[in-house]
Amino acid sequence: MNSNLRKPLLDPSLERPDWQKSTPRTNEKLWLDKNENLDPYLLEVTSSILSELNPMTLSTYPECAELYRKIAKWTNTSPDSLILTPGSDGAIRLAFEAFINEGDSVIHTLPTFAMYPVYSKMFGAKTYPLVYEKSEDGPKLTLEKILSHINEIKPKLFCLPNPDSPTGTVLELKDIKRILAVCIETNTIVLIDEAYHPFYEDTCVGLIHEFKNMIVARTFAKAWGLAGLRIGYAVGNPEIIKFYHKLRPMYEVSTISIAFMEKMMDHADAMYDSVRRLSEGKKYFCEEMKSLGFKVLKTHGNFQHVSFGNSAEKIHEVLKNHVLYREDFKEECLSGYSRFSITTIEKFRPIVDLIKKEMKNG
Amino acid sequence: MNSNLRKPLLDPSLERPDWQKSTPRTNEKLWLDKNENLDPYLLEVTSSILSELNPMTLSTYPECAELYRKIAKWTNTSPDSLILTPGSDGAIRLAFEAFINEGDSVIHTLPTFAMYPVYSKMFGAKTYPLVYEKSEDGPKLTLEKILSHINEIKPKLFCLPNPDSPTGTVLELKDIKRILAVCIETNTIVLIDEAYHPFYEDTCVGLIHEFKNMIVARTFAKAWGLAGLRIGYAVGNPEIIKFYHKLRPMYEVSTISIAFMEKMMDHADAMYDSVRRLSEGKKYFCEEMKSLGFKVLKTHGNFQHVSFGNSAEKIHEVLKNHVLYREDFKEECLSGYSRFSITTIEKFRPIVDLIKKEMKNG
Repeated sequence: MNSNLRKPLLDPSLERPDWQKSTPRTNEKLWLDKNENLDPYLLEVTSSILSELNPMTLSTYPECAELYRKIAKWTNTSPDSLILTPGSDGAIRLAFEAFINEGDSVIHTLPTFAMYPVYSKMFGAKTYPLVYEKSEDGPKLTLEKILSHINEIKPKLFCLPNPDSPTGTVLELKDIKRILAVCIETNTIVLIDEAYHPFYEDTCVGLIHEFKNMIVARTFAKAWGLAGLRIGYAVGNPEIIKFYHKLRPMYEVSTISIAFMEKMMDHADAMYDSVRRLSEGKKYFCEEMKSLGFKVLKTHGNFQHVSFGNSAEKIHEVLKNHVLYREDFKEECLSGYSRFSITTIEKFRPIVDLIKKEMKNG
Repeated sequence: MNSNLRKPLLDPSLERPDWQKSTPRTNEKLWLDKNENLDPYLLEVTSSILSELNPMTLSTYPECAELYRKIAKWTNTSPDSLILTPGSDGAIRLAFEAFINEGDSVIHTLPTFAMYPVYSKMFGAKTYPLVYEKSEDGPKLTLEKILSHINEIKPKLFCLPNPDSPTGTVLELKDIKRILAVCIETNTIVLIDEAYHPFYEDTCVGLIHEFKNMIVARTFAKAWGLAGLRIGYAVGNPEIIKFYHKLRPMYEVSTISIAFMEKMMDHADAMYDSVRRLSEGKKYFCEEMKSLGFKVLKTHGNFQHVSFGNSAEKIHEVLKNHVLYREDFKEECLSGYSRFSITTIEKFRPIVDLIKKEMKNG
């Protein structure tokens, strides 16, 4: 029946991880590999909400209107500017589902979130990646390069995570506004992926009325510590969002995720406290690494890059039984850097101590 | 930016319910309107599993391999025959995503699950509905009519819920095998939607190796009583399922739904007990309705149709403060019938008593 498949599915380069394999993580190690928020103080709040959930949420179909109102209030938008999605990934996929026909042009940065290249292939788009260059200060992508690439390609869709991942880089709001203005001329939809908000506080959400060609993707997986609920949202001008709702599945997300988030939205303070704690942890970690002579990059997500230089091999050896993290990158712009999801000072300390001890002894 | 949208989204008949409205249901009434499984004994089991969930499932990304193994075991298939989806709705959408290009032909029954016409429009398919006829025994669709329609249209995709909803009708396995054989000749993919399994026990899952043109959609929302988790799956020949996985989002479903189902799969007995209890409730309800002279249809889902005939108006009036149900259908083949989700004898009894009392007095 392969002859019946949509053509993009026959692209052999559209490959996905094997679903029959899993990599269970043991409690013996600290998990700093997936940029989850495992802040134990936030987990106290979320655990308590979980224990208060009405079990009827298990057996009943979802009703979402109240959560739309709460998110609208928190984002200072309106429910007709919003659509709930399974994580920011769901909001990203919607952009392809809404706008991309086979053969359309898409620009995404590179390296970036794994799903941009995947959705480009899945929907048969031609991609024109904007490749980060290596620099002393880490991955670099100038506004000039972005604008000239957009003007040259005139893509249907431009995907711009801000902050980007894994680079941790950001564009300032004034630069994004210039991009958006150029994209109006080139008839380009701009998807701003703000998965790391409010680890990085600046946001494009306030621009939805000025720029109808922009959609912002958000998730509760990062700052809110709820990667396990698969819930996020897209924010945009109501004229666009109304078409996104035409693409809605039967229900956006699960009743249990909705019921949970309805309660959690009343605890935004706990999320902000957690962001503050993890940012303090990041600062602590960076200072300690710098004091050891290691280079750290300025990153704006909930992760931190550090280059252990010539000591990399022995430090990986020391850390391997204690913490899961990304040891290195194949991409040139981050080559030689290790990435740690940020955590609290208390949880970073034993890792820092191990590194310090190794550097003293070694 | 409307000019950038995929053309099917501009179809004005692609309409969806308003996401800013909700219809909260109060605890004063029995909810028999959405074919959920609200069996209180099953809810005891699911509540207990909910209370035992590790709160870390909230904050961590999913790992699915173990659940694939458990579902493979329960369905007597293999993990490479399966893909997890957000409810059976997600499995249905995948069929459109995998096979439908704009302008392709789709056959679905009518009336049927609301999303078949919606996905047909969303993906720009031309639809050729197979309309159920009204008969003394309820909605009727003959094998001859189905086969001749398929031979005439030669569709890319044929969507066949078995049992169908809202009709409650089924096709026997031997008839489905004839359809599948014809569909091989017409190069048609057949989607068998078994959302109501095992309220109706016969299944096409055993045919996945014989018929590579067939995919079965399943959900945990009905018999398993877990409409609030949005989890289901598609089963098919590994040659097809491998392409479905190319369409997989970042994660199929939430960590919390996966963690829950991993435990729940060890309690299949509780699900079977619930199906038995609700089937007894259905039998009780049907017998009581027949004893009052009302016509009931033979239905195979977790719902029951009854025609209150000339007494309809007064019975709706009597029941309206006590139970939510579907009073009537606009579709000719079910016109004059009311639909109740089935429940336990204990929960049906007060409803039956109200109807009996009204018929005695009235």
